[in-house]
Amino acid sequence: MLRVLVIDESQERAGELCAGLALSGYQVVALLPSSADLHDRVEAISPDVILIQTDSPSRDTLEHLAMLNADLPRPVVMFAKDHNSRQIRRAIKAGVSAYVVDGLATHRLQPVIEVAIARFEEHLQLRTERDRATRKLADRVVIDRAKGVLMKARGFDEEGAYQALRKMAMDRGQPLRDVAANVLEMAQLLL
Amino acid sequence: MLRVLVIDESQERAGELCAGLALSGYQVVALLPSSADLHDRVEAISPDVILIQTDSPSRDTLEHLAMLNADLPRPVVMFAKDHNSRQIRRAIKAGVSAYVVDGLATHRLQPVIEVAIARFEEHLQLRTERDRATRKLADRVVIDRAKGVLMKARGFDEEGAYQALRKMAMDRGQPLRDVAANVLEMAQLLL
Repeated sequence: MLRVLVIDESQERAGELCAGLALSGYQVVALLPSSADLHDRVEAISPDVILIQTDSPSRDTLEHLAMLNADLPRPVVMFAKDHNSRQIRRAIKAGVSAYVVDGLATHRLQPVIEVAIARFEEHLQLRTERDRATRKLADRVVIDRAKGVLMKARGFDEEGAYQALRKMAMDRGQPLRDVAANVLEMAQLLL
Repeated sequence: MLRVLVIDESQERAGELCAGLALSGYQVVALLPSSADLHDRVEAISPDVILIQTDSPSRDTLEHLAMLNADLPRPVVMFAKDHNSRQIRRAIKAGVSAYVVDGLATHRLQPVIEVAIARFEEHLQLRTERDRATRKLADRVVIDRAKGVLMKARGFDEEGAYQALRKMAMDRGQPLRDVAANVLEMAQLLL
């Protein structure tokens, strides 16, 4: 049973949504009037999905969502009235997985949430791949510089320099990248 | 005015959709009964958006979409009846930007298409960033190996090895990566 955190500034309007969620087989784990301490709440409650109902998301709400998206990403479904393109783009950029205009009908809740989760997972995977490649690239720059220093200073070939770094990383129980950064620092001091 | 390519196996059902698109300010540039030669058609027509109406997307349709997504990506909106989770996931994986269940109402067409375009652009950007980082990493592996060979063979330091490669790349008008690959091949032969 998926656990949903609902945000709606109108508690009255939220009633219908919460009932619809219950009918569709979701568990509403919290109902918040605003996104003010969203990050802490998500950390504490760890919902599977966040569902926001609003006329138009405020700048604050979008900022809170963007912050959440950066380090505690969750599928976010937004039901809004505003269908201004720029506003939609802002919401998507802030990490909204599904932006549904005028779309609340109980029998459509489940597919909308399913689509949002599928999109979210795909997006997160792509982001993880991008971040991993970017980090590997940055690590490699450092490691290769350190190898270069060792090759020059000690007459190692590339493989020898790599093995020297790798041995030190294993001896110290540190990542190769950290050892390489340390080699570069020390080379500045020593060579 | 955005140009829309519509795919619907039922020409009758497509009528309502095409009318709705026209009313919402879109230009329907083609109406196809199936996705069979989608790739060629998209290449020829270059639509801004692809809109597919179906009960449930067939395996063929999803394959055609995945192929399109690989080298001629376009925002794809799918109106379907099937709300089976696995089917939704397959569609999203194949590159569908918006999967709308039972959702065709003329006044909702425009926001649905806007959201799809926004999501599509964000996704494409992320994909481009991932691909660029991955390619840079692969290029770097080759370039650094070539630098290592030059450092060992010619006693260059890292900067010197880099400059030697760079000079050859400029003299030949070739990318650094290609020169580096050539150096590695030749080193195997010569050293």
